[in-house]
Amino acid sequence: MEVTNRYKTTKTHIDGAPKESHFELKTEALALSVEPGSNFVIVKNLYVSIDPYQINRMKSQSSSQKSIGFAFGIAPSEVIDTYGVAKVVASGNPKFEKDDLVVGLITWGEYSVLKEGIILNKLDPMGFPLTYHVGILGFSGLAAYGGFFEVCKPKKGEKVFVSAASGSVGKMVGQYAKQLGCYVVGCAGTKQKNCLKRSLDLMMHSTTEKKQICSQHCKDGIDIYFDNVGGEMLEAAVDNVNTFGRIAVCGVIAEYTDAGKRAAPDMLNVVYKRIRIQGYLATDYLNMYADFISTTSDHLRTGNMQALEDITSGVENIPSAFIGLFRDDNIGKKIVKLVDE
Amino acid sequence: MEVTNRYKTTKTHIDGAPKESHFELKTEALALSVEPGSNFVIVKNLYVSIDPYQINRMKSQSSSQKSIGFAFGIAPSEVIDTYGVAKVVASGNPKFEKDDLVVGLITWGEYSVLKEGIILNKLDPMGFPLTYHVGILGFSGLAAYGGFFEVCKPKKGEKVFVSAASGSVGKMVGQYAKQLGCYVVGCAGTKQKNCLKRSLDLMMHSTTEKKQICSQHCKDGIDIYFDNVGGEMLEAAVDNVNTFGRIAVCGVIAEYTDAGKRAAPDMLNVVYKRIRIQGYLATDYLNMYADFISTTSDHLRTGNMQALEDITSGVENIPSAFIGLFRDDNIGKKIVKLVDE
Repeated sequence: MEVTNRYKTTKTHIDGAPKESHFELKTEALALSVEPGSNFVIVKNLYVSIDPYQINRMKSQSSSQKSIGFAFGIAPSEVIDTYGVAKVVASGNPKFEKDDLVVGLITWGEYSVLKEGIILNKLDPMGFPLTYHVGILGFSGLAAYGGFFEVCKPKKGEKVFVSAASGSVGKMVGQYAKQLGCYVVGCAGTKQKNCLKRSLDLMMHSTTEKKQICSQHCKDGIDIYFDNVGGEMLEAAVDNVNTFGRIAVCGVIAEYTDAGKRAAPDMLNVVYKRIRIQGYLATDYLNMYADFISTTSDHLRTGNMQALEDITSGVENIPSAFIGLFRDDNIGKKIVKLVDE
Repeated sequence: MEVTNRYKTTKTHIDGAPKESHFELKTEALALSVEPGSNFVIVKNLYVSIDPYQINRMKSQSSSQKSIGFAFGIAPSEVIDTYGVAKVVASGNPKFEKDDLVVGLITWGEYSVLKEGIILNKLDPMGFPLTYHVGILGFSGLAAYGGFFEVCKPKKGEKVFVSAASGSVGKMVGQYAKQLGCYVVGCAGTKQKNCLKRSLDLMMHSTTEKKQICSQHCKDGIDIYFDNVGGEMLEAAVDNVNTFGRIAVCGVIAEYTDAGKRAAPDMLNVVYKRIRIQGYLATDYLNMYADFISTTSDHLRTGNMQALEDITSGVENIPSAFIGLFRDDNIGKKIVKLVDE
């Protein structure tokens, strides 16, 4: 059987904010069969994760030969890999059979042809919606879990500040922190803020004068700053972090699309308050995956945690979903649904 | 017996670079006696440590009520406390007797009147010059030892970059790193560089274009950056730090006298390379003091480590010694000798 696979690629490298004109829809004829023993797997993509870090892979300084964290650069016209959930349609790999649900690195398209060696695992939905396995039980969740518990080393009663608190990672960090018994202040855009204000101790609007935000809203200072944005928010946080405070740098979205924009945190504060600023990637915490799934699925079942998802449909809408991340359009984990299940 | 004690104070708060006119010499009549049981100790100061961080205590935002790390602000006209070595001339404290050598927090003066509760200990010189106990075996040494071994967690063979490599702390970090079997690149001013070039693997001049320094001289990247300066050097280091690199922020001398000057390290590098930036103070490692003294005195006795000291004489010269720290005048640990031993 042969299908027409539609997928999205970049037309050029992207060095500033992404625009629709940077992307194009391609089509290819794809035979849904693989040679036995080839180890190739063809999957039909169901849901793909839309993540800000992908912009860094699209920059002209990136190349498909150069590793950027756990991934490589994305060259124009290349298939774009992304985390997601799919269904196997043909398998030359004995680990997978037709109709298996899988989760791992698929593509910005309707079908993915996957070589051996990439991250791909059979998926047991455990009674949860498949989208949960893209976000809250996927890499976004692992980024939140590893970053909060391992990088931040939180203790009950500590004061936690989370930027982009409605985002895929920030939303979970806020919930993990509340579950642990921390006082949690979140920061998000106006519409995001309104959706979240009941779940944290305090929500504030991220475009308020940033230098004042923390001092007004975190009167007892910040023990932990979970940073998804960088820029002025990081500077403001450093000014308000308490002695022996920890800053986990998960993302720097304020600086991804503007290389000239940089946070200049006060290093005197870093010294005198013995602040630890630590960058990390979700993949650093793969060893915690079983713990993460067990803890998080328990919280979801008991209703102690909720997923917040923002789902768009159709391969043609992947670029606009992606572009929206940099415009504060999404409320929660951004996912694109490719086909009806 | 009564003496005239001469001591230096600040006339005003100091917010930029310190100048002679910011300081004044004061004199006071001082009776060299204390009431028994008063717990006061009067010491004759022998050597005082001259340290850049003192400028932060002199700023107008500082006050004697506000803690700055392990110390408090220095108000104009107040006696200025500093680390140093002294001899007891009168003691109301049963822990000390007349003629005891002591080390701890004394003052920018010829005599110090010390209350109970400040850091002060009897000193066994262990056959070393007394100046060693002000610097290499004092708090500068502990800052180097704790910062390098505990904050940086170095391993044999790692590539270490040290700024202000001829300074009191930097000089020791370079030597500890060499002793451990690291490849060590140091950075210092021209005259300092020439004095040090045999002791490290590579010395470079700190006013070379900073962005190029690291990439030219640390071709295999940096595993550990021991930062004494901040500013552009920190930015350059972050650009060249390897994956899982560690940056110990011991001092930020480039930013002490210019509040507008700030490092803006590339936080994308911090994330993707999982860099840890950690501020600390020497006092955080008081629990390692015995290890530090034992290790360092062994290295000194075997000739594996050398002290580098820059000694000026006379209480009247304390301000110029201090001012010189911000002009790159000193080569090694800056000490002022108050009286002949």
